[in-house]
Amino acid sequence: MQATRGEVADRVPVWFMRQAGRSLPEYRAAREGTAMLDSCRTPELVTEITLQPVRRYGVDAAIFYSDIVVPLKAAGVDLDIVPGTGPVVAQPFRTRADLDRLPELHAGQLGFVTEAVGLITAELGATPLIGFAGAPFTLASYLVEGGPSRDLLRTKALMHADPRLWHDLLSRLAQITGEFLRAQVAAGASAVQLFDSWVGALSVADYRALVAPHSAQALAAVRDLGVPRTHFGTGTGELLGDMAAVDGGVDVLGVDFRLPLDEGARRGREGLLAAGLDRGVAVQGNLDPALLFAPWDVLRPAVHRVLEAGEAAGGGHVFNLGHGVPPSTDPDVLHRVVDEVHAWRAGA
Amino acid sequence: MQATRGEVADRVPVWFMRQAGRSLPEYRAAREGTAMLDSCRTPELVTEITLQPVRRYGVDAAIFYSDIVVPLKAAGVDLDIVPGTGPVVAQPFRTRADLDRLPELHAGQLGFVTEAVGLITAELGATPLIGFAGAPFTLASYLVEGGPSRDLLRTKALMHADPRLWHDLLSRLAQITGEFLRAQVAAGASAVQLFDSWVGALSVADYRALVAPHSAQALAAVRDLGVPRTHFGTGTGELLGDMAAVDGGVDVLGVDFRLPLDEGARRGREGLLAAGLDRGVAVQGNLDPALLFAPWDVLRPAVHRVLEAGEAAGGGHVFNLGHGVPPSTDPDVLHRVVDEVHAWRAGA
Repeated sequence: MQATRGEVADRVPVWFMRQAGRSLPEYRAAREGTAMLDSCRTPELVTEITLQPVRRYGVDAAIFYSDIVVPLKAAGVDLDIVPGTGPVVAQPFRTRADLDRLPELHAGQLGFVTEAVGLITAELGATPLIGFAGAPFTLASYLVEGGPSRDLLRTKALMHADPRLWHDLLSRLAQITGEFLRAQVAAGASAVQLFDSWVGALSVADYRALVAPHSAQALAAVRDLGVPRTHFGTGTGELLGDMAAVDGGVDVLGVDFRLPLDEGARRGREGLLAAGLDRGVAVQGNLDPALLFAPWDVLRPAVHRVLEAGEAAGGGHVFNLGHGVPPSTDPDVLHRVVDEVHAWRAGA
Repeated sequence: MQATRGEVADRVPVWFMRQAGRSLPEYRAAREGTAMLDSCRTPELVTEITLQPVRRYGVDAAIFYSDIVVPLKAAGVDLDIVPGTGPVVAQPFRTRADLDRLPELHAGQLGFVTEAVGLITAELGATPLIGFAGAPFTLASYLVEGGPSRDLLRTKALMHADPRLWHDLLSRLAQITGEFLRAQVAAGASAVQLFDSWVGALSVADYRALVAPHSAQALAAVRDLGVPRTHFGTGTGELLGDMAAVDGGVDVLGVDFRLPLDEGARRGREGLLAAGLDRGVAVQGNLDPALLFAPWDVLRPAVHRVLEAGEAAGGGHVFNLGHGVPPSTDPDVLHRVVDEVHAWRAGA
């Protein structure tokens, strides 16, 4: 929490995106026989899975176990998560009439979230829980494509062909995302992270005009609650300034593995300045998940390079990977990374 | 050819990456019953397919119809192209012993290329044929992963875990790529393009140390032949300077849809300068393929924005998409884009 406020903590805090998930044998055991979406809506299971990596690794934060499409499902969208494929939407969203199938999300539909967050925070004690939600653009990409897609052709075509429909769709998704985040914070989450996984497919001009206002709307839903807000996507080298500046500025800017953290921070600050915002931004991320499969004598110096760049960034640093933990990761390697980060002292 | 030398031609030349392929009904008819790799090694079929988009659209260049893995197959690697999946390598390459299954490629194994290029250029007349090859990094990704992959974890892990093996693998691939390009130019191709499709997954530091020298080696194989060389990848915003500067500098820098062409050119020139190279670079690409699915009143101004940015780049402009033609593209839309580009006059 100190790091997200730009303070230099005694030690650099560390957690991993997708730390609760398939790389852990205890996760696979807990999930056995339960479909992905069912697991996300069963408070006891969400609690167990969210806590597993905290217990095993001693990471400094828990991330709420969920999936990017869970709030859509809660709002009533007909979709499923197909093992080996990902989210599959029964009827893709492509016309104005399709908007009728996307109602607002209400707190009353998120009882399972409130209950799970209550159970988790009771067990976590002083360790913060980070709330989780997918950003409107990434959610739209699943709705419009009907499932995962490499090039997002239909999504980008809709965005350009019918900007009014696009804005209406994203505004509705922002409401859903915002409500999902708000329910987590209201129930006790200490921070939130907005995941815009595929936004790196856009040009700056398109991001600014067609996406950023809706990510801002989603984050605005928790602004009055005073929790630090993290904003992350992959392939976002050109977008970092705009991503930092949404809704008056985020607290933490997620950076993937393509740019060093200090350069990411520089771009974030530049974006804040350009938006007339006189504030700093902490950074998070950057270790290439592929390095988790390299020998320790390669991985260790890479961890140190991220720590040094995070220190050089100068505005607060949360250690993380540049993308989610790959399912084939050896948990012992992640454990070693946590210990290495915790043993590191700035300037030592 | 003028544009690739940085000259302003009477009109902006235009061709499309993957113009010869699945979007054309005449391609689907010609390919009927022939497997992809077989079609690439049948000179009459390669000729017909290469010429189809030139006939239909009146584009200013033909691109040699092939696939990124064709030179690997010619060198003796056991692989196939599986419809709906892409290249699949029977035994992935991950150890030093695997290098034995990757022999050098010799001109004698490329008779089908020589024959096809001869047939094509005889029919093309004054229209240039661009030679095609995949870059060592992208080829390595298929060999190491065993097929297409979203995150290239094994490739990047090998690169970091065993840099000597990595360099040996890429050096051998550079020989194969270079030989494949050389055969095309020797037989009559007027230019070449090196496709490093997935290189945008790398940081600048990794690209510079572990990839660029091998792309340079591949392009060096045709340096003495005096043809213009184009270098292209997607997601390469951070890499354009290094990509422009390989092997003493390329003639044309391909830019995807994330950055405007004038900014791409600026980064290219910056990279050339940083490498001590006192020369310009032309630009190519940039129109987002997703816009081909938008209405004409959206697509037309987007085409004009690319034309204007290409002119502003100031060092020569070849109109193209920011990535390959999607298979579901309506050929009539591409035809309209060609006509629009040809009707445009700089400064008008």
